Amino acid sequence: MTWTASVLTLYPEMFPGPLGVSLAGRALQDGLWSLETVQIRDFATDRHRSVDDTPAGGGAGMVMRADVLAAAVDDMLERRPGVPMLAMTPRGRPLTQAMVRELAAGPGLSVLCGRFEGIDERLFEARPVVPVSIGDYVLSGGETAAMVLLDACVRLLPGVMGAPTSGEEESFEAGLLEYPHYTRPQEWEGRTIPEVLRSGDHAKIAAWRKARAVEDTRSRRPDLMERHWGAPRQPPSGERQDDEGELT
Amino acid sequence: MTWTASVLTLYPEMFPGPLGVSLAGRALQDGLWSLETVQIRDFATDRHRSVDDTPAGGGAGMVMRADVLAAAVDDMLERRPGVPMLAMTPRGRPLTQAMVRELAAGPGLSVLCGRFEGIDERLFEARPVVPVSIGDYVLSGGETAAMVLLDACVRLLPGVMGAPTSGEEESFEAGLLEYPHYTRPQEWEGRTIPEVLRSGDHAKIAAWRKARAVEDTRSRRPDLMERHWGAPRQPPSGERQDDEGELT
Repeated sequence: MTWTASVLTLYPEMFPGPLGVSLAGRALQDGLWSLETVQIRDFATDRHRSVDDTPAGGGAGMVMRADVLAAAVDDMLERRPGVPMLAMTPRGRPLTQAMVRELAAGPGLSVLCGRFEGIDERLFEARPVVPVSIGDYVLSGGETAAMVLLDACVRLLPGVMGAPTSGEEESFEAGLLEYPHYTRPQEWEGRTIPEVLRSGDHAKIAAWRKARAVEDTRSRRPDLMERHWGAPRQPPSGERQDDEGELT
Repeated sequence: MTWTASVLTLYPEMFPGPLGVSLAGRALQDGLWSLETVQIRDFATDRHRSVDDTPAGGGAGMVMRADVLAAAVDDMLERRPGVPMLAMTPRGRPLTQAMVRELAAGPGLSVLCGRFEGIDERLFEARPVVPVSIGDYVLSGGETAAMVLLDACVRLLPGVMGAPTSGEEESFEAGLLEYPHYTRPQEWEGRTIPEVLRSGDHAKIAAWRKARAVEDTRSRRPDLMERHWGAPRQPPSGERQDDEGELT
């Protein structure tokens, strides 16, 4: 069975969009994954085909109706039983690389793209829809968030990335940012690639990379460090004690 | 001066993509913002027009060259002095709604989209490029991340959102998730809209929404609560003490 993404949206024409290009696009053409879109409006029942209404209690904007969304969700759950149903919303569970890896290992996913002010909360109470957030900011809709989610998953599917080892040493895989990268030219504007990386000593290179990953995570993302290693505990050994690399 | 986004990418054909549709797309057509893409490969200097090379120290994948990227960045900094230059990378500073608001209030932004394993670290040492991350997961490239960033900014530009009050009570604006939304039908599958929202009492509605925002943030995102209100301090008053609404 091909890993399949079903996107429930008011804007099916946005897809595949960037997912039709480059790595994800080649994989789509090669049949390594597949993508379907579902027009939410097709599940509206009134003659205006309305999918939203004004917020209860007042306020700006429009809210997506629970009944229409539930009809779209029910259709999907019936057609694709056992496939996780997500909804992109800033009120959701923060997307992590661990969630991405879990989703990529499954049969695919269905994702509901919110628009307007939000989704009637009763949908989440009445249906097994997991709210997911890609970050602490607000978008005009869930479509670009869904693209991010799908791109993150698709690159982990078997056969998609060229080198099978890609993805194992990346950011967040060990609860750390990835170590910094360097490539030719050896010297550029008087700046040289760190000596150790030219040593050919694989053990030393691995130790340096691990130390830099720890160091950069601690200085740039103390929140990640705390979450994964615990606040009072010392981080893994090997890192330098200075705080260089601070973002300005 | 129109708010202008310049995207430095190996895949200009991805743009505007989803940003050409719906809210951001209408705003683009109406001239409320503008978008240009720059092909990074145009700044390569060898006859193969290469933009990447193997990682120093070994490992899978390819790394984007500092010299080629710096040439593209320099051209942009010269053409658009004073415009923030960002690069999408998981090693970057986490994007927040506060950063979005700041960027939306400025002249626009330039954004470099990383691809492959990453960007030669010397670029960040040698040029005023701010690394930004949209979340703790890994993408096949920075393009979808740039779309998310741009969508978040564009919706805040003057004239883009229909109602001028939209955006003020949203998630993250007060360091909290947004309160839950409800709309018609009044009753759906036996579930009713909370009574208070039908009371017409604006002060009571505002108090209920604030309490729910605090409550949901505390149960779903204790990390946000801690960051904005401080761990030992009590959160703002008004919330209930139970922990319902936990994600499953």
